[in-house]
Amino acid sequence: MIITLKDKCPQQQIDHLTGWLERQGIGVHLSRGKFQTIIGLIGDVTRVDKDTLEGLDIVERVIRISEPFKSANRKFHPDDTVVGAGGARIGGGHFALIAGPCSVESPEQILEVARRVKAAGATMLRGGAFKPRTSPYDFQGLGKEGLDLLLLARQETGLPIVSEIMNSSQLPLFADVDVIQVGARNMQNFDLLRDLGKMRKPVLIKRGLANTVKELLMSAEYVMAGGNKEVILCERGIRTFETYTRNTLDISAIPVIKELSHLPVVADPSHACGAAKYVVPLALGAVAAGADGLMVEVHNNPANARCDGPQSLTPEQFDGLTDQVRRIREVVAP
Amino acid sequence: MIITLKDKCPQQQIDHLTGWLERQGIGVHLSRGKFQTIIGLIGDVTRVDKDTLEGLDIVERVIRISEPFKSANRKFHPDDTVVGAGGARIGGGHFALIAGPCSVESPEQILEVARRVKAAGATMLRGGAFKPRTSPYDFQGLGKEGLDLLLLARQETGLPIVSEIMNSSQLPLFADVDVIQVGARNMQNFDLLRDLGKMRKPVLIKRGLANTVKELLMSAEYVMAGGNKEVILCERGIRTFETYTRNTLDISAIPVIKELSHLPVVADPSHACGAAKYVVPLALGAVAAGADGLMVEVHNNPANARCDGPQSLTPEQFDGLTDQVRRIREVVAP
Amino acid sequence: MIITLKDKCPQQQIDHLTGWLERQGIGVHLSRGKFQTIIGLIGDVTRVDKDTLEGLDIVERVIRISEPFKSANRKFHPDDTVVGAGGARIGGGHFALIAGPCSVESPEQILEVARRVKAAGATMLRGGAFKPRTSPYDFQGLGKEGLDLLLLARQETGLPIVSEIMNSSQLPLFADVDVIQVGARNMQNFDLLRDLGKMRKPVLIKRGLANTVKELLMSAEYVMAGGNKEVILCERGIRTFETYTRNTLDISAIPVIKELSHLPVVADPSHACGAAKYVVPLALGAVAAGADGLMVEVHNNPANARCDGPQSLTPEQFDGLTDQVRRIREVVAP
Amino acid sequence: MIITLKDKCPQQQIDHLTGWLERQGIGVHLSRGKFQTIIGLIGDVTRVDKDTLEGLDIVERVIRISEPFKSANRKFHPDDTVVGAGGARIGGGHFALIAGPCSVESPEQILEVARRVKAAGATMLRGGAFKPRTSPYDFQGLGKEGLDLLLLARQETGLPIVSEIMNSSQLPLFADVDVIQVGARNMQNFDLLRDLGKMRKPVLIKRGLANTVKELLMSAEYVMAGGNKEVILCERGIRTFETYTRNTLDISAIPVIKELSHLPVVADPSHACGAAKYVVPLALGAVAAGADGLMVEVHNNPANARCDGPQSLTPEQFDGLTDQVRRIREVVAP
Repeated sequence: MIITLKDKCPQQQIDHLTGWLERQGIGVHLSRGKFQTIIGLIGDVTRVDKDTLEGLDIVERVIRISEPFKSANRKFHPDDTVVGAGGARIGGGHFALIAGPCSVESPEQILEVARRVKAAGATMLRGGAFKPRTSPYDFQGLGKEGLDLLLLARQETGLPIVSEIMNSSQLPLFADVDVIQVGARNMQNFDLLRDLGKMRKPVLIKRGLANTVKELLMSAEYVMAGGNKEVILCERGIRTFETYTRNTLDISAIPVIKELSHLPVVADPSHACGAAKYVVPLALGAVAAGADGLMVEVHNNPANARCDGPQSLTPEQFDGLTDQVRRIREVVAP
Repeated sequence: MIITLKDKCPQQQIDHLTGWLERQGIGVHLSRGKFQTIIGLIGDVTRVDKDTLEGLDIVERVIRISEPFKSANRKFHPDDTVVGAGGARIGGGHFALIAGPCSVESPEQILEVARRVKAAGATMLRGGAFKPRTSPYDFQGLGKEGLDLLLLARQETGLPIVSEIMNSSQLPLFADVDVIQVGARNMQNFDLLRDLGKMRKPVLIKRGLANTVKELLMSAEYVMAGGNKEVILCERGIRTFETYTRNTLDISAIPVIKELSHLPVVADPSHACGAAKYVVPLALGAVAAGADGLMVEVHNNPANARCDGPQSLTPEQFDGLTDQVRRIREVVAP
Repeated sequence: MIITLKDKCPQQQIDHLTGWLERQGIGVHLSRGKFQTIIGLIGDVTRVDKDTLEGLDIVERVIRISEPFKSANRKFHPDDTVVGAGGARIGGGHFALIAGPCSVESPEQILEVARRVKAAGATMLRGGAFKPRTSPYDFQGLGKEGLDLLLLARQETGLPIVSEIMNSSQLPLFADVDVIQVGARNMQNFDLLRDLGKMRKPVLIKRGLANTVKELLMSAEYVMAGGNKEVILCERGIRTFETYTRNTLDISAIPVIKELSHLPVVADPSHACGAAKYVVPLALGAVAAGADGLMVEVHNNPANARCDGPQSLTPEQFDGLTDQVRRIREVVAP
Repeated sequence: MIITLKDKCPQQQIDHLTGWLERQGIGVHLSRGKFQTIIGLIGDVTRVDKDTLEGLDIVERVIRISEPFKSANRKFHPDDTVVGAGGARIGGGHFALIAGPCSVESPEQILEVARRVKAAGATMLRGGAFKPRTSPYDFQGLGKEGLDLLLLARQETGLPIVSEIMNSSQLPLFADVDVIQVGARNMQNFDLLRDLGKMRKPVLIKRGLANTVKELLMSAEYVMAGGNKEVILCERGIRTFETYTRNTLDISAIPVIKELSHLPVVADPSHACGAAKYVVPLALGAVAAGADGLMVEVHNNPANARCDGPQSLTPEQFDGLTDQVRRIREVVAP
């Protein structure tokens, strides 16, 4: 961490600041220049509050050099984390193919989709029971009944299940769900993250539409600070000025996260682009860029889906995708 | 709402679609062109699900012409809504000056700030008891004790109080709070919005960093659909590529919201820019652009604030601001 | 194209508008609704000026349904365009591997890089002679001498050359250059585009940092409207709020462009991310997503490059990349 | 400038780097920490190439502390620059009200608009002769004839004129124009900027849609490095995800620029929002935020304007605006 001071600070105030820092066990190096005086902070500055420093009269700017996350930081945990969920594993060379409908709609629908994606090679089943919708007038999901149908599909196919939670009060309903998903809009719902940190169950956190990679890792840190180390990160598109696609899949986030953190990262091309016709190229792009998994929407009858139909692949399209995914994995992660 | 069809749709499928729409009471006008066939939907299409239509095989694109919000829409409620909170009013010509510290820290701090901002002309007192923080290692607020201190300050000064809720389970604690604030990160926490819709108490919704004005109005719609019509909107900066300011205050949102909706809109320049030195020009800019109020951070000792010190005005700076605000209001809202 | 009218327009003004449109040979369909009256325009509306219509008193909004580009539009030219440059070809199944240093620095440098990238399988050589630099104090390129060195390298290796032009006055210097590159900052330098439209020589247009895919295609249209049909498009990253990478490679632009247009599209991962460590995953991602080519910076001594060293691959790294590219092409374009 | 080094750098390489820097007259302070070693550079680092340093094997990151612009920097020139153009002045307390049509269309049009805006209090006349248009099929301006008409209007009204140049070859045509405008799309047309630096005539530079304030100041630096100190900066909206307005007026840029630089800054609300109905509130907002001037589109017959009609004020609307502007100036710049 580096502090740059304003012009012409009284020496006494500088001494006051450096003394206060040193009493917290932080090493301090002062460099005086003609145009700028800077203080370098050496040691563990994770808990130093940037805002407090910037509030001081003599401080111009505070720059973090080391990252503010610790548990999620590859610097302190060089080896890849492998998250286990049901029989599936993800990270450290294990690839997860998570597929299923946007919303669970009926027993017939979820069972058919589950069987089809399993046959094609999926390793986990996704399905929404509680749906965050921009409009209060849109379909909001089947709720608890949806979770029950997912459990039924798991029983039939053996696929571990992933479903989205919307707030902490729903936690008891998720007791049997294999991976709890935190949606993009909840990525900074810190109370929810803190509660998930108390569990011992994998959590998949989707990056918010306007959140940086650093903030995504800080959200993982919230869960991990509570003792739950089983975190999967998910890139699902960020908001930009481009309008041909719903959002912009930030494929660079994949190698960036893999460098900064030991946690597994998956891509969700379906929500990123919002159109089935672009899902396959984006999915393959994410795999080639090093993703540890994919999360893809598949529906047996997209035209009649109650939610996000336009972005769902048919089971036939998914068959084609899985074959190409397998072959690209052979090239990039032999 | 307008539907554009793909090339060469079978007439039978078009008839099927138009028939289905007409049975829902929606008027349909079909226009066939050489390159494009379009269907215009006439009537109340608020409840028509855009996604469902786009999922149909023959549909290329669906365009909403009328806005998807209804209760918040000025088209259906031409007169300005006036929200009353304690003795204060906002909207329809009533200007609200909401001021106070980022976090409530101690009885001395909140009482002193409350007295100072009241003397300067503030009409409401703000203060955070529950703080959403990006890092789990940062100060998270005093919680219930913070709310109690706000109530004490209200008793002392008579100022109605505004404070941020983080999830529905905290609702009982907010029984005596005059205005419940939904933070930017919670703008699309739909469960929370729905629960606030069941209350009969003003709600101030901050625009999310990556949310459009339309989405902000849809979030108001969530609250209003539950019967709670007392909604205040707040522009507090959006995320862009510019880094000199923390976020970019979208001042255009003020006239846009005032055109689209009858709800009052306030601006929060403090969070938008993140630096006290820019707060006054941005606050004056927002007032000149037609805002119904301001939400400004004021701290009696910014350099020692436990949170967001760098963006807080001193009481003296706030005195200067309120005088200029008053004079600009005379120009733009005589 | 669809025109929505304001409430309560006098019938006479509507008749005036529809009559004026019909006299231009455009079909008109009027739909009157309770809340909204819309006019659908049918026929070739490429030359209808959206701004003029929106300026009319009775018009609320004008929405383009068909794309405003014509020569670049796949709808009117379903087959892929194959651009030939020197012996190389790109598009329609032909993949271009364009590699070389950011700037041409010396005969030794450009010859060594050219030999190395050719041996690894590059099909074209890139190198900057005129460099657009944000700071007037930075190295601005060797100018004409740089172009001469590129021609020398072409003579030695047989690789066709690609180099960036900065304004029309430089055109005579580019007479022997195989592909003229228009940089991201010049994507909407319309005078330059118009002059390039008069040439009969391939033009590679880089997408601007804040330009939509539609604007990129409109810039291609400028060149093509002049009669020059040999246009290659290049996705090189857009500007977003994320700061770990210099820009955000918009990989979705690849399938979107391939759907909308028949022109070949390449990706430049080097400028997109600005860091050599991310170039390989992004390059592979772009190929898997369907790019017709790659443009990659390679330098024999990145640490001493005069420009953009941090994002250049070494020749050894490039060897590894080309092998993986070849194998991914076998999966996605067999 | 601060350099952070990678873990475990050999001391010899560090010595090599610090020695090299010192030989360039730059002071060096080395701070070794447990997790991080940093080098602080003290002195004039304007000409140190960040890219070169980042290309070194041992360097992790380079952070600029002082700004890379010098001539435009308030630190080195604390007093406001006052730019004189014809009889008008801008900066240092002088407010410029620049008004006129988007395009010059005819003698009648430009003369009438010039007379009307002069009567309302405008201090300069704007008008486009060369128009950058996204589509090659749109109206491109009257060219030289347009400039002649502007000169005629100046003769009639005495108003100095501002018009946009599109490339250096047009410079001779601008010999009699009072202020040469560089459009947003040309903000980083470095050759053009360099040529304008050789002139002794005011230059108004519009911020690009995706350009940071720092880049805008670097573009001013290009002009000033050539010896032309008469630069006016213009905020005209940046590109964001919001679609209700064409662009997002970044009002914060006004106080930010005034802090960083001594150059005058104006706002162009017309291009920022693209809709006449929002121009007045945004104009007033910009003035209240401290702008040194406004650039506003006014047309005597917006509905029949050949370009950007929807965003033009009528002369009557402009009359109302100027009165409010005057009164707000009295509040913020008494």
